[in-house]
Order: sequence, then C-alpha cells, then structure tokens
Amino acid sequence: MANGIERPLDLLNQSKGKEILVQLKSDRQLVGTLVAFDIHINVVLDNAKEIQNNELKRNIGLTFLRGDTIVFISPASAVSNK
Amino acid sequence: MANGIERPLDLLNQSKGKEILVQLKSDRQLVGTLVAFDIHINVVLDNAKEIQNNELKRNIGLTFLRGDTIVFISPASAVSNK
Amino acid sequence: MANGIERPLDLLNQSKGKEILVQLKSDRQLVGTLVAFDIHINVVLDNAKEIQNNELKRNIGLTFLRGDTIVFISPASAVSNK
Amino acid sequence: MANGIERPLDLLNQSKGKEILVQLKSDRQLVGTLVAFDIHINVVLDNAKEIQNNELKRNIGLTFLRGDTIVFISPASAVSNK
Amino acid sequence: MANGIERPLDLLNQSKGKEILVQLKSDRQLVGTLVAFDIHINVVLDNAKEIQNNELKRNIGLTFLRGDTIVFISPASAVSNK
Amino acid sequence: MANGIERPLDLLNQSKGKEILVQLKSDRQLVGTLVAFDIHINVVLDNAKEIQNNELKRNIGLTFLRGDTIVFISPASAVSNK
Amino acid sequence: MANGIERPLDLLNQSKGKEILVQLKSDRQLVGTLVAFDIHINVVLDNAKEIQNNELKRNIGLTFLRGDTIVFISPASAVSNK
Repeated sequence: MANGIERPLDLLNQSKGKEILVQLKSDRQLVGTLVAFDIHINVVLDNAKEIQNNELKRNIGLTFLRGDTIVFISPASAVSNK
Repeated sequence: MANGIERPLDLLNQSKGKEILVQLKSDRQLVGTLVAFDIHINVVLDNAKEIQNNELKRNIGLTFLRGDTIVFISPASAVSNK
Repeated sequence: MANGIERPLDLLNQSKGKEILVQLKSDRQLVGTLVAFDIHINVVLDNAKEIQNNELKRNIGLTFLRGDTIVFISPASAVSNK
Repeated sequence: MANGIERPLDLLNQSKGKEILVQLKSDRQLVGTLVAFDIHINVVLDNAKEIQNNELKRNIGLTFLRGDTIVFISPASAVSNK
Repeated sequence: MANGIERPLDLLNQSKGKEILVQLKSDRQLVGTLVAFDIHINVVLDNAKEIQNNELKRNIGLTFLRGDTIVFISPASAVSNK
Repeated sequence: MANGIERPLDLLNQSKGKEILVQLKSDRQLVGTLVAFDIHINVVLDNAKEIQNNELKRNIGLTFLRGDTIVFISPASAVSNK
Repeated sequence: MANGIERPLDLLNQSKGKEILVQLKSDRQLVGTLVAFDIHINVVLDNAKEIQNNELKRNIGLTFLRGDTIVFISPASAVSNK
C-alpha cells in the first residue's frame, strides 16, 4: 500500500481523485474527494462533508482548506468511515 | 464542478464574483462575495456578513480578511446558507 | 463599492484617511482613521478607540497595531458603528 | 498628530524618547520611554512599568520586549494614563 | 543504539520501515510504520493507529502527518507499546 | 542608563555578564547571568533560577532558553529581586 | 562553567553525550543524553524519560524532539534530578 512513496507528498499525489479524511487542529474533520494540493498542504476537496463527534455536521461541497490547520490526512479512513 | 482545478488557488480564482463562506479559526464565519485574494489567502469580501451559531451577527460590508485566521473557504456553502 | 480592487491591499489603500473597524484575535475591536499600513498589515490608526462588547473601553489616540493580531478590517462597519 | 506618517514604523520613529503604552497579547501592559525598536517591533523601554487591571504591578526599569508578543503601541495613552 | 546519528534527521532515516510512536501537540498519539519524511518533519505512516489515554481510538491506515503538530518521535516506544 | 542603545539588541549586549530577569509566555520567570544570545533571542543564562509566583521553584544552572518563548528581558529587575 | 560559550548553540555543543533536561511548552519534561541537535533546536535524546509533576511517566528511549516545542534546555538540572 505504501509502494512508491519516497516523500510525504507522494501519498497526496496518489490520493488525487480518491476520498480522504482530513483531521483539523480543532476537533473538526472533513471528508471529501482530493482535487488538488500544494506544498503548503493547502487542499481542495470536492463533495466535502464536515464531521464532528462522528456525526455529519454539514455538507460544504467544493472546499478550499488552508494547510496550517491540518493535523493529518488519511485516505483509508475516508473509505472505512462510510 | 471541480473542472479545471489543478492547484488549490484555482478554486479561489473560479469563485471571484461569487458568494463564498469563510470559516475562521475562532467559531466566526463570514459570508460574502469574493472580490480579491492573494497568495497569503488574504481575502476581500463584499457585502460580508458575520455569522455565529447559524445566526447573522452583523453586516460588515466590504471587508479585508487576513489569511492566517482562515480554516476553509466553501463557495457552495454560501449558496446553500441562503 | 468594490470597484478597482484587484488585490486585497487595494482596499486598504482606498481606505486611507477613512474610519475603519479592526477586529483583533482576542475579542478586542479598534475603530479609528487609517493613517498607514504595510505588507505585514501593520497599521497606524488615528483617534483610535478600543471597543469591547459594543462599549467604548478607552480612547488610545494615534496607535500602531501589529498585523498578526488582526482578523479583519472593515471600513464600512466603522461608519455604521457611529 | 498623524503628520508625516507614511509607513507604520514612522510613528515609532516619532515616538523615540517619549512615553508609550504597549499592549501585550496576554493582559499585560507596559508603560515606558521608547528607547529603540527594530523591524521585528522588538522594543527597548526605559523606566518601564508593568500594569495589570489598571494597577502598577512592578517597576522593571530598562527592558527589552520581543515584538511578537505586542498587540498595539499607543504613545498618547501613556500620557493620559499618568 | 545512537550509533551513526550526527544530525537529528539521521534518527528518522534509520527508522524508515520501523514502527514509531509520534506524540502530537494535542494529547493524540499515532503509532505506525515510518514510510517517508521531509525536512519539515512531515511524515507518512503505514498501518497508523490513533491512541488516546493509552487506548486504541481508531485505525487510520496509510496517513500523511503535518510536521508542525509533532512534539516528539520515538521509535523504541512503538515497540514497547505492543 | 539607556545610553548607547540604538537598536534593541544593544541592551542585551550591555547586559552580558550581568543578572537579568526573563519573563516567559507562560507565567514562568527565569533569573540568571546573561552569557550569550543570538538574533533569534535564544539566550544562555548561568546560575539560572526558575521563579513562579515570586517564589524560587528550582535552580537550573547553566541553561539554554529558546527565544520564541520570551516576552521581555529586564536587567534591572533581576537586581531589585534579590 | 560558562567558559567558551559565545553563542547559545555552544552550550548545546558542549552538552553532547551528557544528560540534559528539556522543558517543553506543555508541562512535559524530558531527560536524556544529548545525541544531536540542529539550528532549529531539533534534538535527539538517548535513553529519554518523560517526566510529569516530578514523576517518571514513561521511558521513551532514543527520541527525536522538534525544536519549536522546547522552552529551555538545562544540562545541570538533569544531573541534580537524579
């Protein structure tokens, strides 16, 4: 699963077009399809959903997310959360 | 909807002149028309409204917003909030 | 109202000599006449007033404000607050 | 009073040798004579007094103050506080 | 055990392919196999598990972790935690 | 006392070999003899004492202090604290 | 004891191979043998122990510590803590 990942950003590159879970510094989590990212880990998600305490809080659609609020990004968790 | 977005800032470019929702690090949210932005994600909104706990707190009109207080920017959410 | 604003700092340039409202990261707000600013969004206000919970806390006159404590700057709000 | 201020640091230059009030990010305030500053807004005050809740907490004399803890600097407030 | 470590990043290099414990600024801990890291200490873990109060909170699989949320990384602790 | 101080770091240069009080962002204070500093305001103190609520908490001897935790440095206060 | 220290990092250089106490921004303390450090004050400790409220919390062995979580580093305190 970790094949071909030499630098951390390689994982984000492999995850384009796939659902990812993004854990923010506050207790917010976002789930959505990774559309784009840059070296600051700014991210665009499509069909993004905001989740708090394991419950859907709201649908926020196509969303730009600033990198400095992100703790971790987990592609597999988005799948297992469905 | 995510057509033509290769880098995160492309979404902001597509959103100029449209209503966006801006989630800040505190629980503040601003809704307004995106007028301009820069690489620091400093943003100018027109007809901006400050929202707390899903209620309109105040109209703040044409407003300059510093990028480092922003968590995410969602163009679709502004529409669905109306 | 948003005429001629191509970059966020254009709004600050248009607001020189006018009253602005500055929302800080704490719950402090300052209202005053914009005298000068720089790219760090350091700001000088004249006749600045500190406001907490919609009440005048104190007059602080000509004041230098560090940019990294600022959330947003709203020229229109200063007028409507009078 | 705002004469000759084109950039924010001009106000600090005009205030050398005068008493200023420095509001810090915590609720601390310092009052003292501005001796020197640099572009990081690091500041040296002479005869500095630390004030909390409008009461003198202690005299700290000649003091070096790191810029990133400063919210605002107000020369006029130091005078009116006497 | 500390053989061959001249710079801090040498320890991370030696730990590739091994289980590590990552302590985050919040009380979160992650345990997983170190796949990749960069100079910002951004990290990719495989088979990552999130742990709170010494209990498994969830499996998050292959995970990208932003460096600025990390307090320390301990390869030995991951082993002793099993 | 403020003679010869043109830039903030000049005060630290004059204070080498003297006792200084260092106020940290938490309520911690350190008192000790200034041995060395750099442009990040990283500091080495000798015979450092940690003080909380005006009471000696512990002697920590020769100590390296990271600049970004410092609020202010006051040479005179260390003397008057004796 | 402060002989030969002209810049703050000289103290860390002298402390290689010795036990040091590292105070973190949270109330965590680590004690361990200094193996390596860099200009960001990232540090590798060997035989590191995590201490909270003066009690051993856990042994974490060879550990990479990110510099921006460090308040101070005291070589002497590690000795006196034994």
